[in-house]
Amino acid sequence: MHPTHSYIEQNKDRFLDELFELLRIPSVSANPAHAADMARTAEATAQRLREAGADNVEICPTAGYSIVYGEKMIDPSKPTVLVYGHYDVQPAEPLELWTTPAFEPVIRKTEIHPEGAIFARGSCDDKGQFYMHVKAFEAMMKTNTLPCNVKFMIEGEEEVGSNNLGDFVKANVERLKCDVILISDTSIIANDQPSIDCGLRGLSYVEVEVTGPNRDLHSGVYGGAVWNPINALAKMIASMHDDNGHITIPGFYDKVAELNEAERADLNKAPFDEAAYRKDLGIDAVHGEKGYTTLERTGIRPTLDCNGIWGGYIGEGAKTVLPSKAFAKISMRLVPHQVSDEITDLFKKHFESIAPAGVKVEVRPHHGGEPVVTPTDSKAYAAASKAMEITYGKTPIPTRGGGSIPIVALFEKELKVKTVLMGFGLDSDALHSPNEHYGVFNYFQGIKTIPLFFEHFSK
Amino acid sequence: MHPTHSYIEQNKDRFLDELFELLRIPSVSANPAHAADMARTAEATAQRLREAGADNVEICPTAGYSIVYGEKMIDPSKPTVLVYGHYDVQPAEPLELWTTPAFEPVIRKTEIHPEGAIFARGSCDDKGQFYMHVKAFEAMMKTNTLPCNVKFMIEGEEEVGSNNLGDFVKANVERLKCDVILISDTSIIANDQPSIDCGLRGLSYVEVEVTGPNRDLHSGVYGGAVWNPINALAKMIASMHDDNGHITIPGFYDKVAELNEAERADLNKAPFDEAAYRKDLGIDAVHGEKGYTTLERTGIRPTLDCNGIWGGYIGEGAKTVLPSKAFAKISMRLVPHQVSDEITDLFKKHFESIAPAGVKVEVRPHHGGEPVVTPTDSKAYAAASKAMEITYGKTPIPTRGGGSIPIVALFEKELKVKTVLMGFGLDSDALHSPNEHYGVFNYFQGIKTIPLFFEHFSK
Repeated sequence: MHPTHSYIEQNKDRFLDELFELLRIPSVSANPAHAADMARTAEATAQRLREAGADNVEICPTAGYSIVYGEKMIDPSKPTVLVYGHYDVQPAEPLELWTTPAFEPVIRKTEIHPEGAIFARGSCDDKGQFYMHVKAFEAMMKTNTLPCNVKFMIEGEEEVGSNNLGDFVKANVERLKCDVILISDTSIIANDQPSIDCGLRGLSYVEVEVTGPNRDLHSGVYGGAVWNPINALAKMIASMHDDNGHITIPGFYDKVAELNEAERADLNKAPFDEAAYRKDLGIDAVHGEKGYTTLERTGIRPTLDCNGIWGGYIGEGAKTVLPSKAFAKISMRLVPHQVSDEITDLFKKHFESIAPAGVKVEVRPHHGGEPVVTPTDSKAYAAASKAMEITYGKTPIPTRGGGSIPIVALFEKELKVKTVLMGFGLDSDALHSPNEHYGVFNYFQGIKTIPLFFEHFSK
Repeated sequence: MHPTHSYIEQNKDRFLDELFELLRIPSVSANPAHAADMARTAEATAQRLREAGADNVEICPTAGYSIVYGEKMIDPSKPTVLVYGHYDVQPAEPLELWTTPAFEPVIRKTEIHPEGAIFARGSCDDKGQFYMHVKAFEAMMKTNTLPCNVKFMIEGEEEVGSNNLGDFVKANVERLKCDVILISDTSIIANDQPSIDCGLRGLSYVEVEVTGPNRDLHSGVYGGAVWNPINALAKMIASMHDDNGHITIPGFYDKVAELNEAERADLNKAPFDEAAYRKDLGIDAVHGEKGYTTLERTGIRPTLDCNGIWGGYIGEGAKTVLPSKAFAKISMRLVPHQVSDEITDLFKKHFESIAPAGVKVEVRPHHGGEPVVTPTDSKAYAAASKAMEITYGKTPIPTRGGGSIPIVALFEKELKVKTVLMGFGLDSDALHSPNEHYGVFNYFQGIKTIPLFFEHFSK
């Protein structure tokens, strides 16, 4: 047992209380109404870092939300681990689907989490996961077992595309110098089957606006004579996939890295029970690109999904309106070596080209993120694997999947430093959904595993 | 000049003031929050009828909103005109598109209405138009020129399908006995080209709900592996029309009355300027069923339009959610001899059958209405035509189009009485849209034309 483990056991209640305090602040970066909450969360994060023993803690302004920085340099000749996390969270809507309020954390037991799970927006993504690092750091400081240097960079714009992170990194190359980036913002396969994510999909995200007539019309008077923008939008969205589930944007697959048979076989070795998957999601069939397994569809293949759609009358009852406008939010998950801006441009060009005469189309790009693959043959990966093997009693499996974390590609580009994605959540934790939660077991398992990573990485 | 015309001239300001009072009450039948406003509007309508000289005025309860009834029986041997109208209005949303508030009527001049138009929800549809009849009746009473019996039936559920009107009519066959039904709830071609609508399209209206996974999912984790309900809904909606704009529901056209070449030629005689039509709507092309003109598409052909669509994240910014559900409101405009319930059933059966494996579909029928054709060879049509010829100085053209008015088919079925649709609005009056308005000229032209209809119909 690592010396930190008894310290962690003795401080369990406080470690939970402190996380709850963070979770109570609705730090929704997508909604400008929460700007003050964002500032409060940054301040609380900085304060916790100071209390844990970090030096030079600073709330660094950016053109958007601030980045919280802190460090503990014990010996310049020793390696340096840079811990990255984010204090912003996804919007909590639709609020009515939450069993308990999104920003009033409570612990409830579930089938998958018999020891209880913390229900709150951000509990898993990413407050609960980045705060494990703050508490593991505190434990190492208090037990005098910090074996190397550590830097913390906790940002506030991950859920809106980390648009200002690049400028910050470029302006702070010296300060951020490190040997590895350690991130807990991904999932393991199950609580009895650890895994390490070695590939993240990138993202292109756009909003489209389709305009038909210049005003809402009475469908009895005009219906049948002009393009209804909702019908037009539906037709355009439908045309984005062919009958095999392939995306129809010209050039979309040009740069997609195709895995060879051996690599695909490796990927499909991860345990996957389709019946259990379907049951968990309440669906009678999976659906995706022909010729690929579910693990491949979510791990190594790009996608196109509508994340939102709206237009016309959406209130109670019936209104026979032929609306002027219809909108959709559409995102594409990217795989190596697709480039976010290039794919956004291809989408825009194609989507505008398929607009029928009689409607106008505007495509507004949102943020993007680059796909990444992290190495499995590095010292850092070996240290993470060993640490998890000790706490879980099983060697973690390398997997691919999960959302994009822009900093991974950014750091690789700017600083030539690789990342280890040592996450502790579960895919079933309802990330980005109502009733997001994070297992109490997972939280403390993370806090215990992190010092072991530091130990093995510093050897 | 009819004897009423000088009385009307002398009371112009009051006639406008009284209409404004009615327009200030937000009698939105689709939204239960306005139930008290509905009751206030019914009471105000009844009170105005009494003041105008009607007897036996009663607010008749139904299973939904009340129907206001009133009558003036001067001689049982004379013919009886039943005036139908509705005091409920469409929802005013989207409110932000109104130049002035929807329920604070004001008069503003427009290019088409140089004498000014009354801007308010319901100004044209149908408070402004039914109130013309109350004021024309008052004028006839005050000038002792009412030549026959008159009955008023002003209902409160026209905009939500007149669901309780059938029961009321069946229970009041004797009370409602009449020789013709006179309705002002349609449009004329232009203020210098009167017309009489002789065919209304019917309506089937449904709400559809498409469910994919049982909860909102993170699109990075699950995207590409399950049906996204928005994408599935878009595909299903897109498939409802083929490349020629024909509706693909099996059996949909089976009962459609096809006009012969002579009838089509007649219909296309109405003045129609496509360039002006496109300019008014701000579109670069009209769009509809191949092989038909715009007048045919809106007059004699059935349609399928989305009236609303929603699902996923529709707030500000970006959220990478793969939603659990997507919804749409879809309505079909029907032509003789399609039957509303039959078409709704065909839609439901077809829409459920095209749901891909991996999503569940629910189709919830809303109200419907039957298509109708009114005769042009009747005494009542001749009276309306003569009355308009006198006030406009031009013979009105018979046209087809406009929304469904359920009572027309209902009365024909229950009482074997035909209707005359003598409306005075313009298609450009933004019915069902923000900034609905009704020309001051049109309002008084209607009040002056109605007594002439009574005169010629009673001859």
